[in-house]
Amino acid sequence: MVKIYPSLLAADFNNLENEISEIEDIVDGLHMDIMDGSFVPNISFGFPILNSVRKISNLNFDTHLMIKNADSYIDEFSKTSRQLTVHYEAVTHLHRTVSRIKELGCEAGVSLNPHTPVFLLEEILPYLDRVLIMSVNPGFTGQKFIESSYKKIKKLHEMKLKLNPTLDIMVDGGVGENNIAKLYNCGVTSFVVGAGVFHQEDKRAAVLNLRKRAENND
Amino acid sequence: MVKIYPSLLAADFNNLENEISEIEDIVDGLHMDIMDGSFVPNISFGFPILNSVRKISNLNFDTHLMIKNADSYIDEFSKTSRQLTVHYEAVTHLHRTVSRIKELGCEAGVSLNPHTPVFLLEEILPYLDRVLIMSVNPGFTGQKFIESSYKKIKKLHEMKLKLNPTLDIMVDGGVGENNIAKLYNCGVTSFVVGAGVFHQEDKRAAVLNLRKRAENND
Amino acid sequence: MVKIYPSLLAADFNNLENEISEIEDIVDGLHMDIMDGSFVPNISFGFPILNSVRKISNLNFDTHLMIKNADSYIDEFSKTSRQLTVHYEAVTHLHRTVSRIKELGCEAGVSLNPHTPVFLLEEILPYLDRVLIMSVNPGFTGQKFIESSYKKIKKLHEMKLKLNPTLDIMVDGGVGENNIAKLYNCGVTSFVVGAGVFHQEDKRAAVLNLRKRAENND
Amino acid sequence: MVKIYPSLLAADFNNLENEISEIEDIVDGLHMDIMDGSFVPNISFGFPILNSVRKISNLNFDTHLMIKNADSYIDEFSKTSRQLTVHYEAVTHLHRTVSRIKELGCEAGVSLNPHTPVFLLEEILPYLDRVLIMSVNPGFTGQKFIESSYKKIKKLHEMKLKLNPTLDIMVDGGVGENNIAKLYNCGVTSFVVGAGVFHQEDKRAAVLNLRKRAENND
Amino acid sequence: MVKIYPSLLAADFNNLENEISEIEDIVDGLHMDIMDGSFVPNISFGFPILNSVRKISNLNFDTHLMIKNADSYIDEFSKTSRQLTVHYEAVTHLHRTVSRIKELGCEAGVSLNPHTPVFLLEEILPYLDRVLIMSVNPGFTGQKFIESSYKKIKKLHEMKLKLNPTLDIMVDGGVGENNIAKLYNCGVTSFVVGAGVFHQEDKRAAVLNLRKRAENND
Amino acid sequence: MVKIYPSLLAADFNNLENEISEIEDIVDGLHMDIMDGSFVPNISFGFPILNSVRKISNLNFDTHLMIKNADSYIDEFSKTSRQLTVHYEAVTHLHRTVSRIKELGCEAGVSLNPHTPVFLLEEILPYLDRVLIMSVNPGFTGQKFIESSYKKIKKLHEMKLKLNPTLDIMVDGGVGENNIAKLYNCGVTSFVVGAGVFHQEDKRAAVLNLRKRAENND
Repeated sequence: MVKIYPSLLAADFNNLENEISEIEDIVDGLHMDIMDGSFVPNISFGFPILNSVRKISNLNFDTHLMIKNADSYIDEFSKTSRQLTVHYEAVTHLHRTVSRIKELGCEAGVSLNPHTPVFLLEEILPYLDRVLIMSVNPGFTGQKFIESSYKKIKKLHEMKLKLNPTLDIMVDGGVGENNIAKLYNCGVTSFVVGAGVFHQEDKRAAVLNLRKRAENND
Repeated sequence: MVKIYPSLLAADFNNLENEISEIEDIVDGLHMDIMDGSFVPNISFGFPILNSVRKISNLNFDTHLMIKNADSYIDEFSKTSRQLTVHYEAVTHLHRTVSRIKELGCEAGVSLNPHTPVFLLEEILPYLDRVLIMSVNPGFTGQKFIESSYKKIKKLHEMKLKLNPTLDIMVDGGVGENNIAKLYNCGVTSFVVGAGVFHQEDKRAAVLNLRKRAENND
Repeated sequence: MVKIYPSLLAADFNNLENEISEIEDIVDGLHMDIMDGSFVPNISFGFPILNSVRKISNLNFDTHLMIKNADSYIDEFSKTSRQLTVHYEAVTHLHRTVSRIKELGCEAGVSLNPHTPVFLLEEILPYLDRVLIMSVNPGFTGQKFIESSYKKIKKLHEMKLKLNPTLDIMVDGGVGENNIAKLYNCGVTSFVVGAGVFHQEDKRAAVLNLRKRAENND
Repeated sequence: MVKIYPSLLAADFNNLENEISEIEDIVDGLHMDIMDGSFVPNISFGFPILNSVRKISNLNFDTHLMIKNADSYIDEFSKTSRQLTVHYEAVTHLHRTVSRIKELGCEAGVSLNPHTPVFLLEEILPYLDRVLIMSVNPGFTGQKFIESSYKKIKKLHEMKLKLNPTLDIMVDGGVGENNIAKLYNCGVTSFVVGAGVFHQEDKRAAVLNLRKRAENND
Repeated sequence: MVKIYPSLLAADFNNLENEISEIEDIVDGLHMDIMDGSFVPNISFGFPILNSVRKISNLNFDTHLMIKNADSYIDEFSKTSRQLTVHYEAVTHLHRTVSRIKELGCEAGVSLNPHTPVFLLEEILPYLDRVLIMSVNPGFTGQKFIESSYKKIKKLHEMKLKLNPTLDIMVDGGVGENNIAKLYNCGVTSFVVGAGVFHQEDKRAAVLNLRKRAENND
Repeated sequence: MVKIYPSLLAADFNNLENEISEIEDIVDGLHMDIMDGSFVPNISFGFPILNSVRKISNLNFDTHLMIKNADSYIDEFSKTSRQLTVHYEAVTHLHRTVSRIKELGCEAGVSLNPHTPVFLLEEILPYLDRVLIMSVNPGFTGQKFIESSYKKIKKLHEMKLKLNPTLDIMVDGGVGENNIAKLYNCGVTSFVVGAGVFHQEDKRAAVLNLRKRAENND
């Protein structure tokens, strides 16, 4: 079954409680984009926001670390987030980082920038719960989907079948009602949606529509 | 007259609009603690929060950049914040950074870590609108006030009289009703208050009480 | 048709105008080696030289950024250079950097160090105008050609046929009359030549000879 | 023939001379783990220890640089060590570094972290004397062997047959009497053993046993 | 009373137990020079050596961190060392680092490179147990004493009288029988001695002689 | 006697030989601004230009290293330049760097950014041949003189009288006929002039005029 994770980055930060409660019961978690201004050219949010939201919601946090010093912060992030994803391009001892995330009781993911080939995951794939394919350049919400992502996801799906059949393939960037079915058909199992949910008049309808489109291969 | 800047870092991020509207008309601005996980060991928040809050409030943003790459981000921060403060310990070409902040139409501040002596400001002081004395180690809210800060502020006040009589002396960290009058007497003109406002039952009363205590030298 | 780009790094910097005017009408551009002393262990030249030469020549500048902070400088380099090449090993968000170069109206290239395999370009290749294969270690002029480059270029040529048939394959390092035909046969379409042009008595003859050798497969 | 390199990191540093003399005549060298606290999260030892040991032993030093600035130190390390190995993940101009190690009269090795695929060595392999497969995450002695290393070593062995038949394949991490034969069968020719030698009551017996098990495929 | 700390960096690392036991009962501790190859251009030793020595000696370890990431390692160093000294030039949040060292139950010191003026300690001095004046450039043993250190120590001694009368003033670099009395008269209370002890025939005699010379102002 | 160093950064790089020969016999050297794009936000020029100019001129090169890794390059720069100046803000072991410059047979200078107070030089001043006061922010030619530089130079001149009477005080940035006499009166002994020489119609006249104005205190 398809999983939908609205990205908090696209929410109205003045009224997060409202924003979240509106869609809480029909989503699979909240995607949290942590940006440090060093790994990516934007500074988004970190612990204070996660700690606040954790107090009002039991939603699963799918936390995407777009930061340079991931190893220094995964212990702290594991206190609020059950799913932690680090960047292939930012982590030097990736096997250690993934092992630590699992020791902390979390699911471990690795994210790839658009230019990074999937076969670089050959060794680490068997140890992962999730691969996050960036279909835009990380750093900002509302960017245009990169078309070559379909082909890339298909290649990852083939690796998954051989090396790790239960892997969750997640995609982030420019996902909407027009491409969600095609992405699903390429092998995506989890969708991060930003503007496509939080910038819509009816957020619930947006989530339900996305889910339906993906599952109906529409 | 004393200026009070509640620090958003201590607010409840689930309901920022409520938090802010409660105290908006009686404060001099909002202190924004931007932390990048590199200059300081915490990741707080950045542009998405500032942009959201700017839409619902005309309050002055006093934005404190605890980040490594301040020069890369001051243009973007100037779009929401009228007051920008950088760290002496983080900026290599401080005169250029301060000049750029002013070119952008903002007031320019420099912040000092607790161990950094004020006489290092000798050359830059005449060009500043504000010096921010950290009376705790930057990175977290709710820390204990460092007692030697009184003496440090007095020395800065003496430099101000000689080099820049209209300088705003701001203090951040562990400020509360017990020390605000003493700080005022040492020369502080602007107070950042975190837990002392946003963790209180009656936030308005807290602001008014702090202001009164400072002004009455109570 | 073969393209020849003499590398300014090998020119006599006392009389650039003479050096350039001697060969200006028979070359396809000037190769500009920008080295920052951080990405490579040499500091070569940057904006002041490019700006000066731009005033006296309409030649195409093919600018090769051997620098750590390419993203900070591509806008400025685009003012004088129509072709910009960055290093795979130096850029974290390569798709974004390539997109930005194109937005600036320039051709975008990616360069590979001798040890870097071409299959790492799998995802980015469709978006590139040019791949620059370093056939010496970047940093100095006059080094010896690395023999395994032939095989590497052939592999890249095969990727080009599949993924991007109009790609320009450029080679830099140790190119001369003895290997240019062989390189051409492997798939090289553009040649950077340093000492092979600017250290020769008759620079025009050197260019013409190289071009003839390559095109005659001699 | 199998080569055994006890790792000094597991020795008793109070009495190195004793530790070494006990096994000196039956091993192929000493493995020296140089850790800088930047590339890996541990600080082990460097020049003073190597210089001291060099005075009392003619053993070959197989020195494994888990450091950020390898290029700055290889000349100095070459004074005591005949074999120098750098990390793929730490060196930007790997072909240059390998060339320099050889110019210094040393054998050149490249080490791969557990998550790094072997096919990244495609271009550099023909120039190497040795590849060091980390079968634990580098940084500490006494860690558990990563099971997927067998498969990785087999892939490297295939590359060796095609590209560099005399390549030495070394493995480091969790090697002991239970897996040494299996590793040998996958293609390992040199074994680093830490706790498996220096933490044993009878160090000589341990070395001889490991060698026998490997060679008998036991 | 004068304190003498032989520096392990000058010892024979082949037989540390012997080296240490020879002088253990007549010294005030062992000075441990931790160098990471990043903050200083040398890599000395770290945890494995400290852990080994701790097993055979109850001597106080006075551990001098010449490393970039001191904050990442002080907890681990506190397990073997009762005295921890960090460098002014290497630590950004010095007050926090000093506070953490004390929380760990250790004495906290700050070291100054030869070019760094003592008045930079004005704010942090009241919180310190020790200041370590480098009288050579850190990184190597056996360097020549920098003569301007006398004057610098006198200035520090004056600050001590005003701000922290129980401060321990330690000097490291080129200390020997010819200058120890003069240094003592300038205000030094603790002496690090490298070659002056461990390179001597009779190490005990060397320690006793140094102590006598200092205390007799000879 | 006043010394005038035209800055090559302001020259026409198309015809350096002409530019230099025009003023060679009436200046005291050429100021070489080496910028690496890391320490300063500009990339100027390095070894190839210095090596070329050295072949046609015996002029003294006064080389100002606005670079991050000065220690890695001073040996190479000493081959063409008799005077080497590094930045206080860029060098961690300043006493070592200064010592090395002198060992190489060069004069050693330290440069201060506009915001850096002169009293930070207290310890290193006795070891210097030259202090270079930046009267603009380093990085670009043609910037406006910072007025507070007069006062700063006077303070440095007082330190010179006490600590190092033969010190050369050099100023760089916005120097021209309108302020050169005032700067001379404050204690400047060497003037770097960029646009003020190389952007003038009659460069010789410009040099002679500047020298006259300074010496006549005009």
